[in-house]
Amino acid sequence: MAGSSFGTLFKLSTWGESHGKAVGVVIDGCPAGIPLTTEDIQQDLDKRKPGQSAFATPRKEADQVDILSGVFEGKTTGTPLSLLVYNQNQRSKDYTKIADYYRPGHADLTYDLKYGFRDYRGGGRSSGRETIGRVAAGAVAKKILKALGISITTYTKSIGKIHIDLDRFNKEQIWQNPLCMPDSHAVEAAATYVKSLMKAGNSCGGIIESYVEHLPAGLGEPVFDRLDAELAKAIMSIGSVKGFEIGNGFEASSLTGLENNDFYGYKQGLIVKESNHAGGIYGGISDGSKLVLRAAIKPTPSIHATQKTINQSGEEINISIQGRHDPIIVPRAVIVVESMVAVTIVDMLLRNMGSQISHIKKIYTKQ
Amino acid sequence: MAGSSFGTLFKLSTWGESHGKAVGVVIDGCPAGIPLTTEDIQQDLDKRKPGQSAFATPRKEADQVDILSGVFEGKTTGTPLSLLVYNQNQRSKDYTKIADYYRPGHADLTYDLKYGFRDYRGGGRSSGRETIGRVAAGAVAKKILKALGISITTYTKSIGKIHIDLDRFNKEQIWQNPLCMPDSHAVEAAATYVKSLMKAGNSCGGIIESYVEHLPAGLGEPVFDRLDAELAKAIMSIGSVKGFEIGNGFEASSLTGLENNDFYGYKQGLIVKESNHAGGIYGGISDGSKLVLRAAIKPTPSIHATQKTINQSGEEINISIQGRHDPIIVPRAVIVVESMVAVTIVDMLLRNMGSQISHIKKIYTKQ
Amino acid sequence: MAGSSFGTLFKLSTWGESHGKAVGVVIDGCPAGIPLTTEDIQQDLDKRKPGQSAFATPRKEADQVDILSGVFEGKTTGTPLSLLVYNQNQRSKDYTKIADYYRPGHADLTYDLKYGFRDYRGGGRSSGRETIGRVAAGAVAKKILKALGISITTYTKSIGKIHIDLDRFNKEQIWQNPLCMPDSHAVEAAATYVKSLMKAGNSCGGIIESYVEHLPAGLGEPVFDRLDAELAKAIMSIGSVKGFEIGNGFEASSLTGLENNDFYGYKQGLIVKESNHAGGIYGGISDGSKLVLRAAIKPTPSIHATQKTINQSGEEINISIQGRHDPIIVPRAVIVVESMVAVTIVDMLLRNMGSQISHIKKIYTKQ
Amino acid sequence: MAGSSFGTLFKLSTWGESHGKAVGVVIDGCPAGIPLTTEDIQQDLDKRKPGQSAFATPRKEADQVDILSGVFEGKTTGTPLSLLVYNQNQRSKDYTKIADYYRPGHADLTYDLKYGFRDYRGGGRSSGRETIGRVAAGAVAKKILKALGISITTYTKSIGKIHIDLDRFNKEQIWQNPLCMPDSHAVEAAATYVKSLMKAGNSCGGIIESYVEHLPAGLGEPVFDRLDAELAKAIMSIGSVKGFEIGNGFEASSLTGLENNDFYGYKQGLIVKESNHAGGIYGGISDGSKLVLRAAIKPTPSIHATQKTINQSGEEINISIQGRHDPIIVPRAVIVVESMVAVTIVDMLLRNMGSQISHIKKIYTKQ
Repeated sequence: MAGSSFGTLFKLSTWGESHGKAVGVVIDGCPAGIPLTTEDIQQDLDKRKPGQSAFATPRKEADQVDILSGVFEGKTTGTPLSLLVYNQNQRSKDYTKIADYYRPGHADLTYDLKYGFRDYRGGGRSSGRETIGRVAAGAVAKKILKALGISITTYTKSIGKIHIDLDRFNKEQIWQNPLCMPDSHAVEAAATYVKSLMKAGNSCGGIIESYVEHLPAGLGEPVFDRLDAELAKAIMSIGSVKGFEIGNGFEASSLTGLENNDFYGYKQGLIVKESNHAGGIYGGISDGSKLVLRAAIKPTPSIHATQKTINQSGEEINISIQGRHDPIIVPRAVIVVESMVAVTIVDMLLRNMGSQISHIKKIYTKQ
Repeated sequence: MAGSSFGTLFKLSTWGESHGKAVGVVIDGCPAGIPLTTEDIQQDLDKRKPGQSAFATPRKEADQVDILSGVFEGKTTGTPLSLLVYNQNQRSKDYTKIADYYRPGHADLTYDLKYGFRDYRGGGRSSGRETIGRVAAGAVAKKILKALGISITTYTKSIGKIHIDLDRFNKEQIWQNPLCMPDSHAVEAAATYVKSLMKAGNSCGGIIESYVEHLPAGLGEPVFDRLDAELAKAIMSIGSVKGFEIGNGFEASSLTGLENNDFYGYKQGLIVKESNHAGGIYGGISDGSKLVLRAAIKPTPSIHATQKTINQSGEEINISIQGRHDPIIVPRAVIVVESMVAVTIVDMLLRNMGSQISHIKKIYTKQ
Repeated sequence: MAGSSFGTLFKLSTWGESHGKAVGVVIDGCPAGIPLTTEDIQQDLDKRKPGQSAFATPRKEADQVDILSGVFEGKTTGTPLSLLVYNQNQRSKDYTKIADYYRPGHADLTYDLKYGFRDYRGGGRSSGRETIGRVAAGAVAKKILKALGISITTYTKSIGKIHIDLDRFNKEQIWQNPLCMPDSHAVEAAATYVKSLMKAGNSCGGIIESYVEHLPAGLGEPVFDRLDAELAKAIMSIGSVKGFEIGNGFEASSLTGLENNDFYGYKQGLIVKESNHAGGIYGGISDGSKLVLRAAIKPTPSIHATQKTINQSGEEINISIQGRHDPIIVPRAVIVVESMVAVTIVDMLLRNMGSQISHIKKIYTKQ
Repeated sequence: MAGSSFGTLFKLSTWGESHGKAVGVVIDGCPAGIPLTTEDIQQDLDKRKPGQSAFATPRKEADQVDILSGVFEGKTTGTPLSLLVYNQNQRSKDYTKIADYYRPGHADLTYDLKYGFRDYRGGGRSSGRETIGRVAAGAVAKKILKALGISITTYTKSIGKIHIDLDRFNKEQIWQNPLCMPDSHAVEAAATYVKSLMKAGNSCGGIIESYVEHLPAGLGEPVFDRLDAELAKAIMSIGSVKGFEIGNGFEASSLTGLENNDFYGYKQGLIVKESNHAGGIYGGISDGSKLVLRAAIKPTPSIHATQKTINQSGEEINISIQGRHDPIIVPRAVIVVESMVAVTIVDMLLRNMGSQISHIKKIYTKQ
């Protein structure tokens, strides 16, 4: 029970179902004194909004966020932020059909088994709309990170079997194409691929990559609450994510120690590494270099193509899922991954503050 | 701060450093009435014990566990179990050299940056010896699972680029070869490969796979504390793990929805699936089918081969790490992965108990 | 940081300030299948609503609750309940004066010291309006308790030095008089007393008592999360509460063991006690008898009478607090105390479910 | 389940039963760099040790603490401290008799009801020996507080109806008399009283008071995790505590606002208060003045005088509890109360560190 909150000191509690009245998040533990406006949050919410391209559900949602508490005279007060988005486009009739059967690849059956029944409209709590709260919280977290000079970059690394080419990596393109790929050649190939799947009533998956720059060293708590372990939980908690890796991840399993170790050196008095296979984390603690992670996203389970399933009357049936669905979740999930990285880092940053007695003394000398 | 505990209701707190007096774990939240002996725990500890094969460090540790609390007349009492193993073979002199420099691939530098200094002997808290507490707790968790008819099977899936062949999968072999591979052909090839690396003073990594059978449906809490997210954290919190996946994991990212969805059917009145790409979890909740997960393990960072690094005097140096090290961590990590799966499942099982009001009524009707 | 949530399995997160847009609560961990309507919550909120008697602030607030998530077809779904009340009567101009000085007995100074600044309107987060979220959550908790046959009775035990007489105790009167005293003679005396204080621009405090009947035995976790310890935290977390006791409480400190011990006996095959000085809890665990607790409430700090204080310009000044204030907080706090008792008991009840292995087996045999 | 840990960032997990092999505590989240020796801990343990005066059980326990982890070269490393005390004087035969009946005032019955059975020797987990772990952790916490200039003073305020006289308050006497009273007249009267009770095979209770000086302002998290709420939980979690109050506590309930409010003024540029009825906390947050709290301790339930109870065969019986018991728990509980105050304050101090964005910036500017 009680699995809708995340974080120890920077703590989010998301709430809301796809076709309920609203969705939202309460953020408890946001430091006081951070300038925060609705617009700060809205610009990230707009990045996950549906109806914006040929590759996303045409369902229109305004998704206007309201800050109900925790901000006074334009700054956070240290008390909980309550952020809310009303659901406006609740075409429930699209979903009444599915009340009786279990959609393959969805959580219909497991919610029924766990709770005895479920809100079947649009997936209820397991819907992607739950991520609105995460993205809103992520926007707040990123304001904190920005004040500390920490930045996160997140993008689509692959769609189906089409991967971006690092030689053509162009950060500027990420939010300028509907697939969030930082490589215009890959965008073209992927767009063609996704369109062909759409015609066939099919869908596809992909990989999202995120990196964090200017992260302080020392974040992450041994031994269970390692930075990579907390990030793994954060990312795996996003619907449709089936795999997580840090640094070179699964590739490390096939390398030798000599190939995989990152060698240290000095450059102009600073510690440098010849490589960063570890992705900026050793023993679960950040070393101040670039943190790199990836999430594997499964193909959208809701497809028009015919599928075999069962209904609650005990019959095997064939279904074709109607309604408005994304042929690929990946681009809309990019900002969700980034948000979870941001909230995790803020939480670990706050948790790290008292790790040395000298840190504590530094803050309390003026009392 | 405070990252050495895991779980909400079945809660472990591990403690201890490689070359301190002892290592151990406190388990808080173990249900009362479970038969538990030292032997139950010892048999799992013996599976991670060093000095047992050509492929593990020859360091000898008796690793005898003592139950200091929480058991009365052979049964758990419901109060905390304190399990302790004294460190016996503390050849600290092997390690004094490394106090001055940072070993590539280790947490030496990050501990220094986080805490201002560190226990440099044998890696201190970041040492693999910390996992003794996890394995001891896992043994207790498995007693609970056994009482409920739930079983876990864990093994080496690959070493370097050598993968087991599912057609030759033989569960009985797992603990009968030093590499924990359930495929005798793969064992042979891997043994040859590891020996060649040992000669070169090098090391390698691999992949561990684990599956759980007879798991009840309904485990896992939406939306952050999903079963797969909790497992991801549990597994990624093990040192040397760089990637985690559930079901078909990263492979799902390159499939289409039609290929990846698991279709439902009925067989003799029971719900069956034609495939299990999801690995037994939808929307973060178990469906009662086989749960499957994998962990990517990096190659042992401690190698005899020459490496470039820096020391605390600001010099770049070449080192060759001496002492006794595993050429491959994978086989010794198999029981660690299994233990973390076990404790996670017990915790989620306890957390799920009150999910329906009818469940609560069932327990309290007799009062 | 992050102190606005309460509970482990039945977890509330309240949010909102006195003069912000709204106040509310997210309840995570409510079991599925509980019938719940707006009216169930509204009737408790109405008990704390201002403007209802001569003894409460005449400030009118409709305080209409809205259920934004977690209920489908009239029943809880197991997912988070988001309950919200918009603030309607925000006469901020009453409060602008106080931005510059620190009101004695209030949290003005401490919020400034902690956060660097504060929302000074109406006390911001430290306002009594925060308790709306607690009461709403308490109403939900009481629906669960009702389904299990557990009931809570809460009332004013004393106002100033006027105590109720147990010989005249009449439960029916609690919600029929504006002071919530179950003794009509005491009501009369207290009303006269409070009126005299109101004329003098002064205020008073009192004691609230609460008892729980038909509580199952076994609730409470040794050794820190005892039922009485959790209740103490729950009750002391309510603004203006300065003391907490269980059973005979402070009186026990002046008794002998022979006087204070509760002797056991049998009556018609059931265990009975000759007394209940312990208030139904031994070793932190409920014994199934009547649970009894008390909270000491300080006098309302906002008074019209002249007080000495300081302003932010470094001056000592005399103030007379204007605006609409309760001459006594006690009656409006009765439902708040009851709510916190209810949520604590539900949480401890859920936490207790897996305490014996046989309990776990009972739930999972059908899988 | 899982109630044996306390704290969010400075987290203790105590373990051990009265007549098990050992008792101990794991402290997770202790900042690195604090000088710590066995002696630091031993001197506090010695203050709760039995067998030291006519007013305590003559049971002899060496209670020698061992530091098993978390300290390297005389300083804490930031990783978990494991502190252990072996039980040496386990005269279990004293207790076998009580396996069959329920001692009035003890947790015998409630443990049986909760867990199905219990370790009946010496009270098992509900024994006062559990507090060894708390006192050991408190000693560590006090080392941190000392480094920050914060001090705690704790003493017996009353025994039975005999209260100390503030006019004779002499801090130096606290640890120089077996009753821990800072007033030699009160000591004499109380000693006579306790001796008379001992002759009658009876026991008594008392009140413990604690105050904290030089506490920084800003500690305590609104709204549930207020400093007073956390302290209430900490203190009420100690066995035999039946009441808790902060500042003037229950007395506040009978005062008027004008009497109870603490007026502010300036003195040499610093904020001063004319009184401190609030005990240093407003809105749950410390204001930097003296923090004052009290705990009501019930009389020792184990008495030689004849008591009526029941056994497990369904009979009503008369018992006279033999064995070695304290006629009064209060003096031995003084250090336990102080320890819980210390650990709570350290935890809240660490939690407060990131409350303002400027605090975070201050720590991370050097990265």
